[in-house]
Amino acid sequence: MKKLSEKEIKKVLEKALEEGRKVIPDGHVATYIPQLGLVDPNLLGITIVTKDGDVYSVGDCDTRFTIQSISKTISLAVALELCGREEVFSTVGMEPSGEAFNSMVELDLNSNKPYNPMINSGAIAVESLIIPKASFSDMLLYTKRFCDDMEITIDDATYASEMSHSSRNRAIAYLLQSKDIIKTDVDDSMVLYTRMCSLSVTSRSLANLALLFAMGGVSPKTGERLISAETCRIVKTIMMTCGMYDGSGEFAVEVGIPTKSGVGGGLLSVVDKELGIGIYGPSLDAKGNSIAGKVMLKYLADELELHLFS
Amino acid sequence: MKKLSEKEIKKVLEKALEEGRKVIPDGHVATYIPQLGLVDPNLLGITIVTKDGDVYSVGDCDTRFTIQSISKTISLAVALELCGREEVFSTVGMEPSGEAFNSMVELDLNSNKPYNPMINSGAIAVESLIIPKASFSDMLLYTKRFCDDMEITIDDATYASEMSHSSRNRAIAYLLQSKDIIKTDVDDSMVLYTRMCSLSVTSRSLANLALLFAMGGVSPKTGERLISAETCRIVKTIMMTCGMYDGSGEFAVEVGIPTKSGVGGGLLSVVDKELGIGIYGPSLDAKGNSIAGKVMLKYLADELELHLFS
Amino acid sequence: MKKLSEKEIKKVLEKALEEGRKVIPDGHVATYIPQLGLVDPNLLGITIVTKDGDVYSVGDCDTRFTIQSISKTISLAVALELCGREEVFSTVGMEPSGEAFNSMVELDLNSNKPYNPMINSGAIAVESLIIPKASFSDMLLYTKRFCDDMEITIDDATYASEMSHSSRNRAIAYLLQSKDIIKTDVDDSMVLYTRMCSLSVTSRSLANLALLFAMGGVSPKTGERLISAETCRIVKTIMMTCGMYDGSGEFAVEVGIPTKSGVGGGLLSVVDKELGIGIYGPSLDAKGNSIAGKVMLKYLADELELHLFS
Amino acid sequence: MKKLSEKEIKKVLEKALEEGRKVIPDGHVATYIPQLGLVDPNLLGITIVTKDGDVYSVGDCDTRFTIQSISKTISLAVALELCGREEVFSTVGMEPSGEAFNSMVELDLNSNKPYNPMINSGAIAVESLIIPKASFSDMLLYTKRFCDDMEITIDDATYASEMSHSSRNRAIAYLLQSKDIIKTDVDDSMVLYTRMCSLSVTSRSLANLALLFAMGGVSPKTGERLISAETCRIVKTIMMTCGMYDGSGEFAVEVGIPTKSGVGGGLLSVVDKELGIGIYGPSLDAKGNSIAGKVMLKYLADELELHLFS
Repeated sequence: MKKLSEKEIKKVLEKALEEGRKVIPDGHVATYIPQLGLVDPNLLGITIVTKDGDVYSVGDCDTRFTIQSISKTISLAVALELCGREEVFSTVGMEPSGEAFNSMVELDLNSNKPYNPMINSGAIAVESLIIPKASFSDMLLYTKRFCDDMEITIDDATYASEMSHSSRNRAIAYLLQSKDIIKTDVDDSMVLYTRMCSLSVTSRSLANLALLFAMGGVSPKTGERLISAETCRIVKTIMMTCGMYDGSGEFAVEVGIPTKSGVGGGLLSVVDKELGIGIYGPSLDAKGNSIAGKVMLKYLADELELHLFS
Repeated sequence: MKKLSEKEIKKVLEKALEEGRKVIPDGHVATYIPQLGLVDPNLLGITIVTKDGDVYSVGDCDTRFTIQSISKTISLAVALELCGREEVFSTVGMEPSGEAFNSMVELDLNSNKPYNPMINSGAIAVESLIIPKASFSDMLLYTKRFCDDMEITIDDATYASEMSHSSRNRAIAYLLQSKDIIKTDVDDSMVLYTRMCSLSVTSRSLANLALLFAMGGVSPKTGERLISAETCRIVKTIMMTCGMYDGSGEFAVEVGIPTKSGVGGGLLSVVDKELGIGIYGPSLDAKGNSIAGKVMLKYLADELELHLFS
Repeated sequence: MKKLSEKEIKKVLEKALEEGRKVIPDGHVATYIPQLGLVDPNLLGITIVTKDGDVYSVGDCDTRFTIQSISKTISLAVALELCGREEVFSTVGMEPSGEAFNSMVELDLNSNKPYNPMINSGAIAVESLIIPKASFSDMLLYTKRFCDDMEITIDDATYASEMSHSSRNRAIAYLLQSKDIIKTDVDDSMVLYTRMCSLSVTSRSLANLALLFAMGGVSPKTGERLISAETCRIVKTIMMTCGMYDGSGEFAVEVGIPTKSGVGGGLLSVVDKELGIGIYGPSLDAKGNSIAGKVMLKYLADELELHLFS
Repeated sequence: MKKLSEKEIKKVLEKALEEGRKVIPDGHVATYIPQLGLVDPNLLGITIVTKDGDVYSVGDCDTRFTIQSISKTISLAVALELCGREEVFSTVGMEPSGEAFNSMVELDLNSNKPYNPMINSGAIAVESLIIPKASFSDMLLYTKRFCDDMEITIDDATYASEMSHSSRNRAIAYLLQSKDIIKTDVDDSMVLYTRMCSLSVTSRSLANLALLFAMGGVSPKTGERLISAETCRIVKTIMMTCGMYDGSGEFAVEVGIPTKSGVGGGLLSVVDKELGIGIYGPSLDAKGNSIAGKVMLKYLADELELHLFS
């Protein structure tokens, strides 16, 4: 990573925002969940927090939005902590799938487990592992702590909207149950999964979460260990190979920062040992990733030399 | 069809039964629904009814068993009568699938409709078309009339067992809902589908149903038209191309009698304009078809010249 | 089948031609082989020959066109005669595939054999069985005899055009070789397969071939047995379930006459024990079947009661 | 990376070799190419070269073996240099496939391009891009220079063996041609592809190549730029996400060093900016990766803190 002055960093961020705004019209907000379709596509914000505690924010950084699939990183981390990696990875794989996030084809053809915890089938399986060990309120508390944001709550309107448009996820959950991959009640898994997706965050919350992963699980603020180093390593690696749906490979080449996206428009990006980056930009590309967010990250990666192999 | 004396036909049936019994040990009763696994695999019976009203029965012809997938022919017939072929075939296709009866792969890849009404996805879609037009008690009455068997009821133990092992069918139903193929409540569709599968019949009931299809929908007993000729033609053709799961093509070549199987061990075979054949033999081959039943039908087809192209 | 006078039959044929012509503009000639793209889409002809030797022809009945996939019925028949059904069906299956005629997906997923002899993979496998037992000139002689047409030759321009656009079929052939399904040289199989597809016939030749199958393999003219009854039964059944590519199921329901199509515009239709029908209409529907030919067959099936279950 | 003394590094390497040897019996040498099946499975060697020019070798480091799929990194690098990334990635994707290295399923279903350049279809497509710009002798020269090994030649016996067992790769190549993905002659592509796979290297050659990638394309010996930094970044990223066939995701989590394997038993591992590692261990796991090599790399990653996110 390049060393820059505070002023230079701010300038880079302003420029990144400007670059991002240009491509907003090329994307669309998610519409498969009606509530998500009501969002203003022009919102765009980014927050960077450094290991030294500096915070840089530009754009719509205080706007709350639903975390959606980014919660998969939290659930994976908690499941690894509570159940151990052996149990988790005997239930869900670690391989990129090459398929869309909600495909059932591979799961039906390859009978034993979902490809990875970042696609819906894998994440639902992860929730089912958590259920015997932690309640939703436990999970909410973990999320608040990991994100250093005590304001996080469920966005009720989005939760209701998702639950009433959950046919495909229910299909996935029942397929998992029919293959004995999940042992809990399907409804319980669906409720926990959908609640986790409906948590309301800001780009700042995501930047804090990213920094926690970057620092190997030790809170940069309090010095307290919240997650084990091994769990952080696993989560970061899987974000690298599987974090951007079926655009993960290209993103790794182009940007090279472990990142997880959500259809709410969020991006969680980890610059290992250095920075946490959180982005909000609800206009999505065809693969479901924030279109302006990707442009901003590419710009930052180039300017600040953040690519893993830069 | 060969013309034989009553005595000759009886002898052929006895010999068929004998041939069938030899292969019973090569198969297994269905076990994916626990209740089906309790059945005695050695049961075997066949009933033939002729257009002239003669009835020939050998073996376990009075044993009741659940109709399972054979009910798909009844539901298809009723849906065609109540909704019209246009509505039915805009919801479900007519093509053999080449896949197992409960595959979701093709449905997920090919988005618009299930391949045909004889696989689970297609049958569940058919039930959802029926729901606004007929209740289960209507359907039960249709079944009793078509089978000329007023004793038909739900086998409660099997129904309960199926409902508690219905994850895969629920997965299919939710996938159908997510693609807007079914518009009714998933639970309603599942209940109607599973109830229809749990109806308790005998080989005689099936033989009567087969004869009704063979006679183009006119009751051979009362002369009353119960089903239109066009509906019967459609059902018979789809039985020919899709009736034996992913063994349909081979069965058409080997035996050449339009037949629908059920995992309860039943076979419904239509010798057009001549005979109805009903079989019960719960030992199944790897594709889910009665193993002894197939041998008996092959024997009958050869001896009585029943192959469509014999 | 309805009994009609000669005059009535002619009238029905004239009307069928008229109905067929209406839909020609809804289709397109095949273009994936450039030579086929040069054909006049408005050509349309039909020939019916009866078991009593009557011949009815209307439209473009003397125009020669390439037989294409219809040759798969001849190759299957010859392979069954020369190698026996056991060898043939241990190499190729009998199940409809639900996929397009040139798909490789199922073959790669399901490793042991092509679904059936009417799709390209299955037909190439059949040619490889024939190669050790018969030369192309043998095959040409069989074809001439079966079609009672001594004028049949290779259409050299089409053959050359197909050979230079055979990448996909070569891909299929090498995949078959890699799975040990074909043991002969890939080039030899490709040459025989493509030559058989390039044979030049008329609707009259096809009607004769269809009648031969209808009569169980005995030449209606000479009384000589050219093909065994069992082989004819197999070919007719497979035409019924697999003859119209991934439109086979719908065609069976709608028309109910065992038929094989070719992308050259030909249709071979067998009315068992009664008629042979040959059609030429190069304007194809989206599945590769003669669009006007299908309309004509539907019209004939209704008027003459030719549906298997009519 | 941990800083260790020369003596400590040697000790770690000895221990790694010992660990690796334990698992050799759990794997098997590749047998789908007969010549590879003749190799002694107990061979095992590792070479590490550092940016400072130190070289550490233990085990069978002078044994030559065929580079196989590891050549895909060289071909990708050359194609990027000669054709530019735009042309390369309009022909082949960057996404992990989730499928075995020689699957054709996704390519047939997803029509436009192979998933990535590390699977056979992608690599054959890359060779076809190179053909108009570089001959095999050019490629050999590139390889010698990149590996700093002037002794590299084709292993003729392996080349001959592969060419006579190339049906599946030919199937892939013809499928690529049928989709217009490759424009060159199939035989030319097959020859170049197979020649590149048949190049004979040592663990030392691979370590040199790895170090070249680690140093961003500048020869650590001469200071000469052999490959652009951008090309190196792309190759390293794709090695990270796709380098270990359908075990890439798990390997990234467990070991976290960008690595490419070959069925000849080689492993090429890049510790960015620090080390090049080359391994030879022909006993393979079920996914085609050196079973002892993986254990050695895991051991080294733990001991020397080489995981990308350690």
